[in-house]
Amino acid sequence: MAIEQQTTTETGRENGDRARRLAELDARTVIHPHSVIGSPAEPMILERGQGAVVWDVNGKSYIDGTCGLWQCPVGHGRRELADAAAEQIAKLEFYSSFGDYSNEPSIRLAERLLNLAPPNMRRVFFTNGGSEGNETAIKLARLAHHHAGRPERSVILARTGGYHGMGGGSLAATGIDRLREGYGPLMPGIEFLSKPHGVRGEDVTDTLIAELEERIERIGADRIAAFVGEPVLGVGGMVPPPPGYWPRVQEVLRRHGILLILDEIVTAFGRIGHWFGCERYDVEPDIIVTAKGLSSGYIPMGAVLAGDRVLDLADGATFLHGFTYNGHPVGAAVALANIDILEREGLLAEADRLGGRLLDALKPLEGLDHVLEVRGVGMMLGVELDRGADTAAATAGVQAAARADGVIVRASGTTIVLSPPLVIDEQQLDTLAGVLTDHVAAA
Amino acid sequence: MAIEQQTTTETGRENGDRARRLAELDARTVIHPHSVIGSPAEPMILERGQGAVVWDVNGKSYIDGTCGLWQCPVGHGRRELADAAAEQIAKLEFYSSFGDYSNEPSIRLAERLLNLAPPNMRRVFFTNGGSEGNETAIKLARLAHHHAGRPERSVILARTGGYHGMGGGSLAATGIDRLREGYGPLMPGIEFLSKPHGVRGEDVTDTLIAELEERIERIGADRIAAFVGEPVLGVGGMVPPPPGYWPRVQEVLRRHGILLILDEIVTAFGRIGHWFGCERYDVEPDIIVTAKGLSSGYIPMGAVLAGDRVLDLADGATFLHGFTYNGHPVGAAVALANIDILEREGLLAEADRLGGRLLDALKPLEGLDHVLEVRGVGMMLGVELDRGADTAAATAGVQAAARADGVIVRASGTTIVLSPPLVIDEQQLDTLAGVLTDHVAAA
Repeated sequence: MAIEQQTTTETGRENGDRARRLAELDARTVIHPHSVIGSPAEPMILERGQGAVVWDVNGKSYIDGTCGLWQCPVGHGRRELADAAAEQIAKLEFYSSFGDYSNEPSIRLAERLLNLAPPNMRRVFFTNGGSEGNETAIKLARLAHHHAGRPERSVILARTGGYHGMGGGSLAATGIDRLREGYGPLMPGIEFLSKPHGVRGEDVTDTLIAELEERIERIGADRIAAFVGEPVLGVGGMVPPPPGYWPRVQEVLRRHGILLILDEIVTAFGRIGHWFGCERYDVEPDIIVTAKGLSSGYIPMGAVLAGDRVLDLADGATFLHGFTYNGHPVGAAVALANIDILEREGLLAEADRLGGRLLDALKPLEGLDHVLEVRGVGMMLGVELDRGADTAAATAGVQAAARADGVIVRASGTTIVLSPPLVIDEQQLDTLAGVLTDHVAAA
Repeated sequence: MAIEQQTTTETGRENGDRARRLAELDARTVIHPHSVIGSPAEPMILERGQGAVVWDVNGKSYIDGTCGLWQCPVGHGRRELADAAAEQIAKLEFYSSFGDYSNEPSIRLAERLLNLAPPNMRRVFFTNGGSEGNETAIKLARLAHHHAGRPERSVILARTGGYHGMGGGSLAATGIDRLREGYGPLMPGIEFLSKPHGVRGEDVTDTLIAELEERIERIGADRIAAFVGEPVLGVGGMVPPPPGYWPRVQEVLRRHGILLILDEIVTAFGRIGHWFGCERYDVEPDIIVTAKGLSSGYIPMGAVLAGDRVLDLADGATFLHGFTYNGHPVGAAVALANIDILEREGLLAEADRLGGRLLDALKPLEGLDHVLEVRGVGMMLGVELDRGADTAAATAGVQAAARADGVIVRASGTTIVLSPPLVIDEQQLDTLAGVLTDHVAAA
């Protein structure tokens, strides 16, 4: 954190002018995701990052309690990732990977991922991010059954509260109503199960498994291609699975020949203490979707891992699917260097150590009447409020107040979600917990 | 092209071993787009690029007649784009652009794009590539009508032969049957018009416009959100529009309150001699989708430009949509540097000069019985064969034979498609034309 403050008033003034010009330009030219069209907000323009700290264009610093959109386990400002990108660009910036075209970094990354993944994982298909990954997974699952002579097996089981992306297929599988409204008709053939959430430890597993069995019975197993779910709900509020949930889901699905797609866009690469979250929950999916932590967001990159069962079903099918930047050599080179850092610095183990410390610090908030639950696993934590109809306004208020105090947290519906870089230090973590505690108490 | 050849046998042998190991690893671990699952092809592993030339891992060089997947107007190996990427990563590699978060490179890029775009374009929404762009455009068009009190306006008019991407919405709008099979049910609400192709100059505009009018009449204009089309069909075979097509389409659409989405993923940034292809065809779309040439593929990056009419309809709507890497500062920094190169080297003008030379060289192939058509505009060219049921095999054969001679072209169905970098020199262009002519003649 040895970055100098602005030292002269003159520089401060020039910087203020630049900040104002940029803010005006942003408001006039950009449509931000989740913004109101025609009514742009005053932007917060970030300019530098180092470790778990980011600075805005006015020089104000913030402890990054969210990693942007949970993408950055190794933290900001890693010079070696800049070098990896530049070195690869200088050799070969990009060439298509369609058909038989290939490049060394993407081959090396596929090998590396399969060495880290559960043993049933056999091949890798690259993407540029999470949404593309879930589009890919849904298409691959449907194609596999189609190719195996079961074209009627096309239904996808998904869950209320699940978030899988914003493309046509990934949005259709996203179980959050407000994100779907106005965009229909969406892709059909998705069936939603209940949100897998037992508040304050209520054991809902039996109920959820009974619902799953019943739903499969009603739809007919021979019409269902796959089940898609996040090991831990992310946008849906950082909700860990109820006890024993995943192995039991897997048992039901296998019994009915239904593929399991695990959306590990958030959970993979250390976020919950493992390379892949499925290890933590003792489940062996057929398809694993990753992005974010794969490259720590330095370059857009995602990977879909395919296991034995889906590949056996699809054996001999031509996979007429792919996005231009599939297997991007720069993204792959950066991902390899990012995995090096995760290994070298032992960051997977940090998720439980630091996440446990943060959870302990926040848990007392459950003593407040308007705090429904404080929960989390590894470095995915959520503080869910209950202010009735005003809850979303209350979480947004906490986000704004914390930011004023130099701490970034994120309001996601009724929950304040936290996913700091795995390199945050204890002092930063305690500051984050302290600021959040004060503002939740006052919310 | 001052790159030295491998000089010692020893080095050559080591390189050969590495190439074989990589090929074996690729075949064992990667699923390539458009490959056969379980039956991987022998890969062509590219390793270096400079200008219009790429080298494989064995040191063999190829003239790049396609720019990979048409993404690279400035050519390969641009050191200043490596520097732009590294410099931005060292400052701030990435932070979310959701809500009020922003960063300087993406703001500057939005301003730059609006300065280059048609005057009715008002705001920019960033993506990571073309598919995401069309997903965004379809969602924005539907949301705009929904917000304006016309939720029943959700149908999208698309065209046979059109290619808009591989996500749930973009695939649904893609009018190429083989790319859709096995993935359904796809997103509903898409209506396909005929392929806009008058072979060897046949004037089909009247027919196409009559079909458009009739289709709108049948569906009901009050059920239609938008029309989506590429100014020049790309994957569909490099088909320029029939004379006067676009202004007449636009007139019909405007009369019926239907938005026009122009998919300029291939045509923008110089490919057909303009910043945006719509300028060439005298049409003013409501939404422009870009990717590829925006960053020359060095970093995945796309941008959707939104014009007055769609923004007025959507005014006050919250655009609950976005992909994690929206407004990626590294992609934006590279895109700005890429646009600098296009401007500084006058590459837009090269598209017509070089493309005209290439078209002139290939046109005589129309004298052969099995050549249906040689066509093109700017640096988008196609040679369409007709060998009956064997045509796709014939174009694939030409692709393979040209590659053996050190020239990369691409078989896209019945057409061999060409889209070289705008920096290709005349000698390389003539070699490309010569090799292609020989192999087409023998096809």
